[in-house]
Amino acid sequence: MTAQFPPPSAAAAEIALQGDEFIALRRKLHTQPELAYREEKTSALVAGYLEGWGYEVARNVGGTGVVGTLRSGRGGRAVGIRADMDALPITEATGLPYASTVPGVMHACGHDGHTAILLAAAKHLAETRAFSGTLRVIFQPAEENGGGARAMIKDGLFERFPVDAVFGLHNWPGVPAGEFGFLTGPAMASVDLAVIRIIGQGGHGAKPQQAVDPVVASASLVLALQTVVSRNVDPLEAVVVTVGSIHGGIAPNVIPDSVELQLTIRTFNDEVRESVRQRIIELAQSQATAFGARAEVHYPRGYPVLVNHAGETEFARQVAARHFGEERIRQRFRPITASEDFAYLLQEKPGSYLFIGNGDSADLHNPRYDFNDAILVDAARYWVALVQDYLSDNSEPAK
Amino acid sequence: MTAQFPPPSAAAAEIALQGDEFIALRRKLHTQPELAYREEKTSALVAGYLEGWGYEVARNVGGTGVVGTLRSGRGGRAVGIRADMDALPITEATGLPYASTVPGVMHACGHDGHTAILLAAAKHLAETRAFSGTLRVIFQPAEENGGGARAMIKDGLFERFPVDAVFGLHNWPGVPAGEFGFLTGPAMASVDLAVIRIIGQGGHGAKPQQAVDPVVASASLVLALQTVVSRNVDPLEAVVVTVGSIHGGIAPNVIPDSVELQLTIRTFNDEVRESVRQRIIELAQSQATAFGARAEVHYPRGYPVLVNHAGETEFARQVAARHFGEERIRQRFRPITASEDFAYLLQEKPGSYLFIGNGDSADLHNPRYDFNDAILVDAARYWVALVQDYLSDNSEPAK
Amino acid sequence: MTAQFPPPSAAAAEIALQGDEFIALRRKLHTQPELAYREEKTSALVAGYLEGWGYEVARNVGGTGVVGTLRSGRGGRAVGIRADMDALPITEATGLPYASTVPGVMHACGHDGHTAILLAAAKHLAETRAFSGTLRVIFQPAEENGGGARAMIKDGLFERFPVDAVFGLHNWPGVPAGEFGFLTGPAMASVDLAVIRIIGQGGHGAKPQQAVDPVVASASLVLALQTVVSRNVDPLEAVVVTVGSIHGGIAPNVIPDSVELQLTIRTFNDEVRESVRQRIIELAQSQATAFGARAEVHYPRGYPVLVNHAGETEFARQVAARHFGEERIRQRFRPITASEDFAYLLQEKPGSYLFIGNGDSADLHNPRYDFNDAILVDAARYWVALVQDYLSDNSEPAK
Amino acid sequence: MTAQFPPPSAAAAEIALQGDEFIALRRKLHTQPELAYREEKTSALVAGYLEGWGYEVARNVGGTGVVGTLRSGRGGRAVGIRADMDALPITEATGLPYASTVPGVMHACGHDGHTAILLAAAKHLAETRAFSGTLRVIFQPAEENGGGARAMIKDGLFERFPVDAVFGLHNWPGVPAGEFGFLTGPAMASVDLAVIRIIGQGGHGAKPQQAVDPVVASASLVLALQTVVSRNVDPLEAVVVTVGSIHGGIAPNVIPDSVELQLTIRTFNDEVRESVRQRIIELAQSQATAFGARAEVHYPRGYPVLVNHAGETEFARQVAARHFGEERIRQRFRPITASEDFAYLLQEKPGSYLFIGNGDSADLHNPRYDFNDAILVDAARYWVALVQDYLSDNSEPAK
Repeated sequence: MTAQFPPPSAAAAEIALQGDEFIALRRKLHTQPELAYREEKTSALVAGYLEGWGYEVARNVGGTGVVGTLRSGRGGRAVGIRADMDALPITEATGLPYASTVPGVMHACGHDGHTAILLAAAKHLAETRAFSGTLRVIFQPAEENGGGARAMIKDGLFERFPVDAVFGLHNWPGVPAGEFGFLTGPAMASVDLAVIRIIGQGGHGAKPQQAVDPVVASASLVLALQTVVSRNVDPLEAVVVTVGSIHGGIAPNVIPDSVELQLTIRTFNDEVRESVRQRIIELAQSQATAFGARAEVHYPRGYPVLVNHAGETEFARQVAARHFGEERIRQRFRPITASEDFAYLLQEKPGSYLFIGNGDSADLHNPRYDFNDAILVDAARYWVALVQDYLSDNSEPAK
Repeated sequence: MTAQFPPPSAAAAEIALQGDEFIALRRKLHTQPELAYREEKTSALVAGYLEGWGYEVARNVGGTGVVGTLRSGRGGRAVGIRADMDALPITEATGLPYASTVPGVMHACGHDGHTAILLAAAKHLAETRAFSGTLRVIFQPAEENGGGARAMIKDGLFERFPVDAVFGLHNWPGVPAGEFGFLTGPAMASVDLAVIRIIGQGGHGAKPQQAVDPVVASASLVLALQTVVSRNVDPLEAVVVTVGSIHGGIAPNVIPDSVELQLTIRTFNDEVRESVRQRIIELAQSQATAFGARAEVHYPRGYPVLVNHAGETEFARQVAARHFGEERIRQRFRPITASEDFAYLLQEKPGSYLFIGNGDSADLHNPRYDFNDAILVDAARYWVALVQDYLSDNSEPAK
Repeated sequence: MTAQFPPPSAAAAEIALQGDEFIALRRKLHTQPELAYREEKTSALVAGYLEGWGYEVARNVGGTGVVGTLRSGRGGRAVGIRADMDALPITEATGLPYASTVPGVMHACGHDGHTAILLAAAKHLAETRAFSGTLRVIFQPAEENGGGARAMIKDGLFERFPVDAVFGLHNWPGVPAGEFGFLTGPAMASVDLAVIRIIGQGGHGAKPQQAVDPVVASASLVLALQTVVSRNVDPLEAVVVTVGSIHGGIAPNVIPDSVELQLTIRTFNDEVRESVRQRIIELAQSQATAFGARAEVHYPRGYPVLVNHAGETEFARQVAARHFGEERIRQRFRPITASEDFAYLLQEKPGSYLFIGNGDSADLHNPRYDFNDAILVDAARYWVALVQDYLSDNSEPAK
Repeated sequence: MTAQFPPPSAAAAEIALQGDEFIALRRKLHTQPELAYREEKTSALVAGYLEGWGYEVARNVGGTGVVGTLRSGRGGRAVGIRADMDALPITEATGLPYASTVPGVMHACGHDGHTAILLAAAKHLAETRAFSGTLRVIFQPAEENGGGARAMIKDGLFERFPVDAVFGLHNWPGVPAGEFGFLTGPAMASVDLAVIRIIGQGGHGAKPQQAVDPVVASASLVLALQTVVSRNVDPLEAVVVTVGSIHGGIAPNVIPDSVELQLTIRTFNDEVRESVRQRIIELAQSQATAFGARAEVHYPRGYPVLVNHAGETEFARQVAARHFGEERIRQRFRPITASEDFAYLLQEKPGSYLFIGNGDSADLHNPRYDFNDAILVDAARYWVALVQDYLSDNSEPAK
């Protein structure tokens, strides 16, 4: 199943022998997906395994989160590896034998794979103890929705389980299976939602002068919003402002009271994110006012920009180069306009979030998405190698 | 009940005596409203009365329409008076003792009143026969929806029942009860509906370059549509182009496939109406094309402009002046941006459509609208006077 | 020269005999046009004639204005007839033998004709004295520019020279020569100018984020301004808002500091005029603000709406009907989107401003415009008839 | 004068000794700036020096260009170093003793410095001959305007004077004096100009229906152009579309015949450049058409994207690191939205264009810009080192 990859270091061969066990586990998780903060079976299973392998286990960290700690040797450093556990409110359409048995819930983002990968690595590291320092395996709830990473931080994650660096990975459809992707600096976007209600005054369609037409004000706003990207942001910054929905009115001949716009906003820079937020709110209010209407803006902050630290990213890249070869590292891997709550962890600790190709699968969040089991073993090997390199007696991460 | 009006000619006094009969009839009609082309009870009732009074009656003209003919004296002229009979799909909210007994159907435009008025006049004219010529009383179906006037014309109305001129009236809320309103030339608007679908190509909200965004194209179109009125039409022409509804999209982060706009368009001039139609279609297509999208435009023609003929309108005005006094004629009665299918009759024959104040009632098509019975008798007297003046041995309508 | 017109009343025939005299006078005035408030030769000439004919003459009323007063009979009423005297800063291109001899100045609006017409009538009325009351002939400066009518009012025109009503006329190219046009109510537009400067912050064309782009803000404003007509005004009201000029920037790659827009605004209703003014200022400021810019708006008030009084207009129409026949009165003469400072006189006194066709001449203000001398005599006859009818012993103007 | 820099390799010390000579030469060039393709004195001076130092010299390559060739040792490789020679049509405002003596012409971009730097290096390399291979020093005309690089290529530059790689540099205000900047891949933008004329039909400002208003069409176009950046381009691509000037109209009350827009367009990717060009042309035409107007678009192609080759850039960076230290290499040097015709050379040959900080001077193209003589010697040393490293007997550029 992993035959397409060149054989890596002999030391990791044992994982391969146990690969089928964790592929079976991954598929079991796939049949019983659990939504954000409801990952009870999953976290119980994870915690049980970790305890069985000798980890010191903390449950219910930030809700259903689990942290396992394993010490070995005399090394004074600590590294955290994070996997996310939650599924999505999507009805699976893969037709696989191990498809979801929970109606309307699906592991459509491969968090089942991420969990199985980290468990496979955790078992191997527990059996071999071939590292010197402290390993923290962090199983996080609610990545898709609810900010489980933030919840764990608020629950004292890094005070209770200190680490020098933290790493995570995501499988990536469309990239050849098993290829690694690394990005220094801003790697994944902040994603904010804005709901703007333009409130005019309804009236008869033939008497516009007695009404305040929110349709016209909204149209002017939609065009004005284009200037946030075209005029207000450094051209070298990547920003998206999309009005994904616009709704107002019930009849051709009645001017409605209001029109509602829903926007998604993505940036790769906190300062840009705030200035874009400011501009959108200003534009909504001033365009509404211009036409005699007013704007109500609901603009909750979503996940922040995920910024990989330069030293840890170079370290993580070199781990891949050493153990899998430069040819397994994807050139020109580009920043991603999706978001990820691992960003909160990187606001607290140095670290890096990396990617591993899932091959030509359906896209993430697609009802036909399938995690590629062929990458499970190599991904686990990668975590083993990273932990061993990070927690060796002599290595230091590049700064 | 009619005490607030100064007493007109003694000849018409008899109607007043019978006023209560027709107010009762009006209320009976009000309890049993019938939608367009389903005015079966109403037309049967009308036809029965007319036959009873000696009219030659034709049923099922243009569907449920009824035409009654009455001849008197040696006069060679013929005049038609039209009343409309249909109700609206509105749930009545008046709480009146004689409120609609048909769920979801209501005489919210006063056609019950128009019918009762014409019956009252028809009875008096049959009893007195104080005219010289041919009287046609035309009870029309489907004014609100479906163009009953056009249906009657197509069914041979004016070939089978020739007239020299045709008159009609509408009660008008907001104008003091019993005041008359006359308009020469364009008096009521053409009302067209346009449904425009801007079809782009949906996609991920973070990848606008792979989609064709119909929201932006629609916004540009909404603003461009404002120029139809502001730039493309003679400033002295009254035109309305309202985008009453705009709908597209299901989520903030998904660019939708399409957006649908619904418009109402009103004009007072056929040439303007056609040029506005042309511009709207051109703008929809060119604005869609500009952004890589395309437009589907559904733009059925509604009722045309209602153009009152100068001579007949002056005649009708003089009838009111002579019989009710100049002070009962409203100054500066302005053209109306609503439409009326009497317009079709005026495309065939000289005539005039006039208005009689309904007082401070709720507005037409409002669930709390109530026809003002206090105007019934005077309106009937007016029809009697108009018929007598038009069909006298010596009078000629002003040309 | 007046052969194309049917002969009116014999009494007016004498004017015809003297027509050539006033045509010669008109042409003399044409050779020596004088700009607003500089009508010195013209007013001296006018005053001299009037004195010669027995008028009591006041000079320098509102600058170069002249008022002549003539009393006759015992009638207690007074009527004013006004002619304007000023020329335009236009270089004549007619090639006529009596073309302007003043470089860059031309009677391109026919005020030379208006002056000659009123002089011809004044002479005849002085010679015949066939009226009973007080005649005021008002020769006004600065109609084109500077509001000479207002200047005369401020100089006590109506306190010093009381009248019961005031009348004026304008020749009208495109209407058959000698046809009369009458309009009740709003007849000529208010015309205001607005100069809007959108002030952003200039910068490098490749660094829009460091600038405030006034070009984009101006574009949004131009589209928003279309909604003043399409949304903010009763569709039955005639309004024009035109952005006639837009200027900003000196190079493609430099964002300019500001953009200037110049607008002309026309309305037929004072209330509408003020609400349009308010909306334009609001839109300029709010659209500028929306994009981080600011707006400077210079919006001087021009001439107001010219509103003809109903009674005096009907009277003036009947004068034309009686003396020249109904066929000389143009049907459907439409309101005019140009302005005229006679409007100020009508704010003070009842009256009417009327029109007389100039035939197929070049348009007003065109360098090839030529006043049609063929209409001079009939126009003078009209003033004579109007004065005689207004100042008869028994007639009252229609109210 | 160069004391603030740490002393590099001893071998280059000799240049420092001669630094004053080339600073004097730089200042001489500054006094006698020459516009594009008129660099006659400059090229004569350059050619004379090179011949004096033993270079084989070709004059008039691509106009006023000069190529000097010097061979040494047995190395088979050839490297080209390019300097640009032309000045700008700007009136100098520095007040320096060596300010321009040519009215309206100024070395406001430091090409005088670039020329002096390369001459200093050329002299040292000729004197020391401490390299093995073929050196080509390329003195190019017309970088600012006219594409001198392309002209030299068309004149057979690389056929007549083959090289394996080509390098160039630009001084950069705002970066600390003497710091080096390197960029792999797209480093400087393509810069295109578009002139769009929206041709409507002029008319009276009060009769918009008889005109085709190009002001409104232009406003709609300006807003639509914002969507090129906001919607049509990958958010990760840097693109600028600026409308720097808009002009139309001569009076508030006259609708003009046309409006002219001037745009600057910048991209970092040829494919994007072409798609943006396509979109702008489509938008101009479709927005004009939407309003009944038409568009004339003049859109000459400017300089292409300057794409540094990865291997040669890494080589150039390592030269700086070796000879000046890593601390002299600026981190996060960002791509530049200006353009440079060195891009044409990089379309033909591998190579890299690099930057050297000019300190806190006024910006390029500013009348107060001054080339920082303090960087001249180090820049010359850098060229010497690069040539020596590239043309050593054993080194290969990184690929």
